[in-house]
Amino acid sequence: MADSYYYDVTTWPIGNPHTDIGEVINSIITDVKARQTDADSNNEGKPGATIYIPSGDYHLTTQVLIDISYLRIVGAGHGFVSSSIRFNTPKEEWNNLHEIWPGGSRILVDLPAINHGPEREGAAFVVSRKGNPRISSVEFANFCIDGLHFIDDGSGNNDPENTYINGKTGIYITDAQDSFRINGMGFIYLEHGIVIHDADALSIHDNFIAECGNCIELRGSGQASKITDNLIGAGYRGYSIFAENFGGLLITANNVFPRGASTVFFRNVSRSSITSNRFHAFYPGVIVLEGNCSENLIASNHIYRACEPWPPMKRYNNGLDDLFGIIRIEGNENSVIGNHISDIVDEINIRPEGTAPIIIRLVSGVGNYIANNHIVANTEGNNHNEETIEESCFSTQVEAVLATAKTHSIPVVAVHIDSGSSRNTVLDSGTESQVYLDVTANAFRPTPSLPGIC
Amino acid sequence: MADSYYYDVTTWPIGNPHTDIGEVINSIITDVKARQTDADSNNEGKPGATIYIPSGDYHLTTQVLIDISYLRIVGAGHGFVSSSIRFNTPKEEWNNLHEIWPGGSRILVDLPAINHGPEREGAAFVVSRKGNPRISSVEFANFCIDGLHFIDDGSGNNDPENTYINGKTGIYITDAQDSFRINGMGFIYLEHGIVIHDADALSIHDNFIAECGNCIELRGSGQASKITDNLIGAGYRGYSIFAENFGGLLITANNVFPRGASTVFFRNVSRSSITSNRFHAFYPGVIVLEGNCSENLIASNHIYRACEPWPPMKRYNNGLDDLFGIIRIEGNENSVIGNHISDIVDEINIRPEGTAPIIIRLVSGVGNYIANNHIVANTEGNNHNEETIEESCFSTQVEAVLATAKTHSIPVVAVHIDSGSSRNTVLDSGTESQVYLDVTANAFRPTPSLPGIC
Amino acid sequence: MADSYYYDVTTWPIGNPHTDIGEVINSIITDVKARQTDADSNNEGKPGATIYIPSGDYHLTTQVLIDISYLRIVGAGHGFVSSSIRFNTPKEEWNNLHEIWPGGSRILVDLPAINHGPEREGAAFVVSRKGNPRISSVEFANFCIDGLHFIDDGSGNNDPENTYINGKTGIYITDAQDSFRINGMGFIYLEHGIVIHDADALSIHDNFIAECGNCIELRGSGQASKITDNLIGAGYRGYSIFAENFGGLLITANNVFPRGASTVFFRNVSRSSITSNRFHAFYPGVIVLEGNCSENLIASNHIYRACEPWPPMKRYNNGLDDLFGIIRIEGNENSVIGNHISDIVDEINIRPEGTAPIIIRLVSGVGNYIANNHIVANTEGNNHNEETIEESCFSTQVEAVLATAKTHSIPVVAVHIDSGSSRNTVLDSGTESQVYLDVTANAFRPTPSLPGIC
Repeated sequence: MADSYYYDVTTWPIGNPHTDIGEVINSIITDVKARQTDADSNNEGKPGATIYIPSGDYHLTTQVLIDISYLRIVGAGHGFVSSSIRFNTPKEEWNNLHEIWPGGSRILVDLPAINHGPEREGAAFVVSRKGNPRISSVEFANFCIDGLHFIDDGSGNNDPENTYINGKTGIYITDAQDSFRINGMGFIYLEHGIVIHDADALSIHDNFIAECGNCIELRGSGQASKITDNLIGAGYRGYSIFAENFGGLLITANNVFPRGASTVFFRNVSRSSITSNRFHAFYPGVIVLEGNCSENLIASNHIYRACEPWPPMKRYNNGLDDLFGIIRIEGNENSVIGNHISDIVDEINIRPEGTAPIIIRLVSGVGNYIANNHIVANTEGNNHNEETIEESCFSTQVEAVLATAKTHSIPVVAVHIDSGSSRNTVLDSGTESQVYLDVTANAFRPTPSLPGIC
Repeated sequence: MADSYYYDVTTWPIGNPHTDIGEVINSIITDVKARQTDADSNNEGKPGATIYIPSGDYHLTTQVLIDISYLRIVGAGHGFVSSSIRFNTPKEEWNNLHEIWPGGSRILVDLPAINHGPEREGAAFVVSRKGNPRISSVEFANFCIDGLHFIDDGSGNNDPENTYINGKTGIYITDAQDSFRINGMGFIYLEHGIVIHDADALSIHDNFIAECGNCIELRGSGQASKITDNLIGAGYRGYSIFAENFGGLLITANNVFPRGASTVFFRNVSRSSITSNRFHAFYPGVIVLEGNCSENLIASNHIYRACEPWPPMKRYNNGLDDLFGIIRIEGNENSVIGNHISDIVDEINIRPEGTAPIIIRLVSGVGNYIANNHIVANTEGNNHNEETIEESCFSTQVEAVLATAKTHSIPVVAVHIDSGSSRNTVLDSGTESQVYLDVTANAFRPTPSLPGIC
Repeated sequence: MADSYYYDVTTWPIGNPHTDIGEVINSIITDVKARQTDADSNNEGKPGATIYIPSGDYHLTTQVLIDISYLRIVGAGHGFVSSSIRFNTPKEEWNNLHEIWPGGSRILVDLPAINHGPEREGAAFVVSRKGNPRISSVEFANFCIDGLHFIDDGSGNNDPENTYINGKTGIYITDAQDSFRINGMGFIYLEHGIVIHDADALSIHDNFIAECGNCIELRGSGQASKITDNLIGAGYRGYSIFAENFGGLLITANNVFPRGASTVFFRNVSRSSITSNRFHAFYPGVIVLEGNCSENLIASNHIYRACEPWPPMKRYNNGLDDLFGIIRIEGNENSVIGNHISDIVDEINIRPEGTAPIIIRLVSGVGNYIANNHIVANTEGNNHNEETIEESCFSTQVEAVLATAKTHSIPVVAVHIDSGSSRNTVLDSGTESQVYLDVTANAFRPTPSLPGIC
C-alpha cells in the first residue's frame, strides 16, 4: 500500500471507520497530500489514490472534504433496499423482516437532521477547491450513502418518514470541476442525493438514486455531460433530474420512476438531449423546460403519467393541475419528436374538475418543432378504491401499470400552444380537435383522425 | 477479511473452489449469516458481503443458493469465446487452437445435462427467499458461467452441440426481488442464461450473453427495470429477451445478434420501451408483442433480418414463415416510430413461396400508432451458394452484412393490419401499395411513392 | 497470487513498473503463458489473468505485446485532466496549478514521439495474434494512457502542443478478435487513441477519450459491436469515431464534443446505427457516410455545429466549407429520422462567403429516407470578438452554448440531394424553399412553412 496509493478504510490506522468513516477518509486524503507534494517531476505528478470501502456499515459524523484530483472512493455494492416500504410497514412487523437497513458498503449519514438545512453543512461528501486546474477525475463508485430517516416537516401530517426532508446531502460539489464520475452508487433517504455546481464532462452512470428528496441537481452552469443508464426516483417535493444554465447535457437510457415532483427539470438549458428514457410519474409536470430553454431535443422517450396507487402516499402530490402539461416548454426551437406519452387518470382525479388535461404545453417561444408524438389518454382501469395498505407496494404498482383492459379514453389537449407564441410547427401529434394553437401564427398538420387514406 | 466481509474463493478454508465452487460459495454465505445475525443494532444491519472469484477455472457440482441481500459475487472477466465456432470446427484442428475453452473467472456448470430439465435444478446459482423485504441488491459481476456442451435433442440430427439444449441455467431467481444487478457477466452454452421471476428495479447491463438457448427471461411479473448496453444472442429455439406481465421495462442500447427465435418477446407487457437498439436476426418474428401488450414504444431501432449465411446452422430456423411479421403486435395503443427495418431475403428463401413478406403486422388491437418507419427489402446479394464451411463464421457473416451492392428489391407488405382491428394510424411507413389495412376502419397516410412535391 | 492469476504490477519481482511498466506487463504475460500450457484438461483451459495497476505514474518505454485471451488489465481511474488547457496556459502560471499532469493509474507513453510515425511502432499496447480462435475477451479498464506532448507538425505555426501529432497510439490491435472490452479508460494526448482491425462483438463503453488526434478507429472490417456511453473528443485533424467495412455497429448514448474533423466517419459501412447521441462539433462534416454506406440509421441525435469560440484554437479547422454538409451521405437506403440539428454560425464565418450552408447533403445514392429532422440555423449570439485568452476555456464554451438570445436565423439548405440521385424520400425536414432536390426523381413533402392547418 505504501507504494500503491491504495487505502482500505478498515485497515487504516487513524480513526475507526465504523464509528466515523469521515475522520478516516479525511485522514487518508491528508496522507495522500503529504506523499504527493511535487506536481511535476520527470513528467510525474500527483496521481491521486483509491480509497476502498468493503461491505459493511460505516457511521459518518465528520464531513469528508475532497480537494485533490484523481481520488477514487470505491465500495462493494450500492446496497439499496426500499426504506420507504419499510417505514410504511407497521413497526410490529419489523421483527419478521429479514433485513431492516440498506447494505453493501453503507455510509450512515449521522450529521444532524434538519428541516431544509444548508445543503453543504448536511453533506456527507463535499468536493471544494478553487484555482486551476479545476479539480478533475474524482470518482465515487459502488457504495451506499444512506440518510436513514426523514423528519417532520411541520405540516401537521405527523408522517415524518414520508417528508423527504432531513437536510442531508450525499455528495455536494461547490466548484467547477472536470471529468468526474459517479458510477454504481446508491443514494437513499437523503434530502439531496447529488448536488454539483459548474460541471464539465461529468458522467453519472448506472447508479441507483431513489427515495431521496431530490436525486441529481446540476447547478450554476455546465456543459458536455451525461446522465445515463440510471435508476432514479425522487420524492414528491423534489427533482429527479435538475439542470440550469447547461449546454450539451445528454440524458439517455435512464429508467426514472415516481414520485418526483418533476422527472427532468431544465432552467435555461440549451442544446441538450433527453432521448430513449423511460419516465414514470404520478403528477403533471413530468418534463419542464423553464426560462430560456432552446434547441433541446426530447425524443424516443416513453412517458407514463399515472396516479399514485399506493395508499400511504396518496395524500401527497406536487400541487400542479392537469393544465400544467405533462411536458411543459418555455423557449425556442426545441424538438419534441417521436415520444410515446400515456396520461392515465380517472376523470375524478382531474384538476381542475371537468377540464381536459394538457399533454404538451408550449407556454412561450418560437420555432419549436413537435412531431410524431403518440399521445394516449385513458382511465386507470384498476379498482384502486379497493386497495389497502395490506397489499404490497410492488404488487399495487405492477397491477396499476398492467391495468390497461377495463379503461376508456378521456379527452385531452394533446398540444397546447399558448397565445403569443408563433412560428411553431406541430405535426402528427394530435387530431385537429386535440390541438389548441393559433392557426394564424403556427403551422399544424393534425394526425389523421378518421379512417381512410389521406 | 474478518472485519471486512470480503471473501476470496481461492483462500477460503472450506472446500476447493476448483473442484466445486458451489460448496465454497455456500459455505461463505453460511459464514456471512453466522456473522450478521442482528438486523438492527445502532442503525446497523446485515450489510452482506463480497465474494471474489479470481481468473481461473472453477467446476460447480453443488448448486449455489443465495438467500441474503447485498451479496456481491464478482469475478475478473466474462471470458467469452465462441464455443459454437469451436464445436463446428473439425476436431482434428483442435490441436492447433490457441485456447479451447472460455476463460476469465469461469464457472464450469457440471450439474447433470438433461434434455429440457427443470430449470431450477439445473441452475448454477439459485436466488430464493420468501418474506419481507424482498431480497435486495444482490449483484453478479464480471464472471463467466459456462454450460460447456449442449446435448442431443432426439431429433435424429446427430448434431448435439448445435441443439442449445442441456437443461442448464446460469442464474435462476424464484421470488420477488428488488434492485438486483447483473453487470459485465458472460453466459455461454446454457439452455437458459438468466431466469428472473417478479423483478423490480432490476438492472441487466453491459453483459455478454450469447450462444445460450435463451438469454434473458423475465417471468411472473415485474416493473421499472432496465436491460441496457448488452451483447446478446440466443439460439434458434429460444428468446434473446423475454418478459411477461411487465410494466416499465426499458430495453435500450443493446446489440442483439442472431440467432434467437425472437429478439424481444413480450407477453402481456405494458408501458415498456424498446429504443435505440440494434437487432440482427435470421428469421421472421424479431419483435413479438403477444397477448395484451399495450402502450409500448418501439422506436429508433435498427432491425435487420437476414438469412442464415453460416453453413453449419443453415438447417435450423424458428419455423415461422414470412407472413408472421418482422414486428408482430397484439395489443392496443402501442407506438412504432422511426425504426429502420431491413428484410434481406432472396425470393427462393421466402415462405410461403411466392408471397410478399410482412414487415410490421398488427394482428389485433386498436389505437396503435405506426409512423415514420423506413422499410427496406432486398435480396441478399452475396453468392451464398459458394460458401463452404472452410470460410470462417466471422468472414461469412461480415460479407453477408456488407453485401448491399448486387441486390434488387423485393415486394413486401410494409404494414399489415389484420381485419377486425380499427382506429389504428399508419403514417409514412410504406407506400399505398405496400400497406394492407381496412381503410374504413383505420387512418393511413402513405409514404409518397412517386417523385414530386406532395 | 500463485493460485489466482492476479498480478499487481507494483509487487511483481521483474522490472520496475514506475520506470518501465511495459517490461513488467510483458514479463507477467510470459509468466501466465508458462503457467497455462494445457488448453484442454478436465475441460479446463487457459483462463487468462488480471493485471492490476494501482493509482500512480508509470513510464512505458517497452511496448506491451498481448497474445493471450482473457487478459484483463485494470487500473484505478482514468485520471483525465485537460492537457490542452494546461499547454495553452502561460508557463509562468504553472507554478500555481494544483496538478500539472493527468493522474489515476497513468501510463506515460515514453516511446519516441514522431510526426505521423507508424502507428504500431508508437503504440503503448499492441494486441496481435494469428490463428484460431481469434484472440478473445481481452479487457482494458480504468486506467489512463497519456502521450504527454504533441510535437511540431512542420507547418511553421510553432504551436507543437496543439498539433495532435506525436506518432503515439494507446491500444493497437492488428488481428481479428472477439468480445474485447474497453471500459472506463482514459486516453489523452495520443495521435491515435484506439485502433482496432477486424472487430467482432467489441464493446467500447464508458470511457473518456479526449484531446487525442483520433479517438476510435475501427479498421479492416467488423461486425456486431457497440460504442456506447463514452465521452469523446478528437483533434481538428482526426476522427472521433471511424469505422470501415463494418456491419451492425451500434453507436449510442455517447457525448462527443469538439474538435474532431468529423464526429462519426463511416466508409463502406452498412446496417449500422447512430442513435441517441449528443454531438457537438466546430466544422462541417459532423457525420460522414462515404463510399457504399447503406441501410444505416441516424436517429434521435442532437447535432450541434458551432464555431470555435476558444482563442488558442481559432486558427485551426478541418478545411471543409459549409456546402460539404453537416451530415453527408453516399449510399443507398439509409435512414435519417428525428434528429435535431443546430448549425450556429455567423454570416461572416460562412465559406464560401455568401452561400447558404447545407445541413443534410446526399451526394449519391437511392432509396434514402430523410424524415422529421428539425433543422435550426442561427447566428452565434455571443460577442466572440471580445473574448480573450484570459477567459477560461470552460466559461468561453459554456457561454457559447448558452448564447441563444441575441441571434437571428440564417438561410440554409436543409436537405440537398445532388443531381443524379433518385428515389429518395424527404419528409418534414425543411420547407419547400429550404430543400434542394430533383423533384422529377425524388419524393418530397416539405415541412409546413406557413401558419395554418395543412
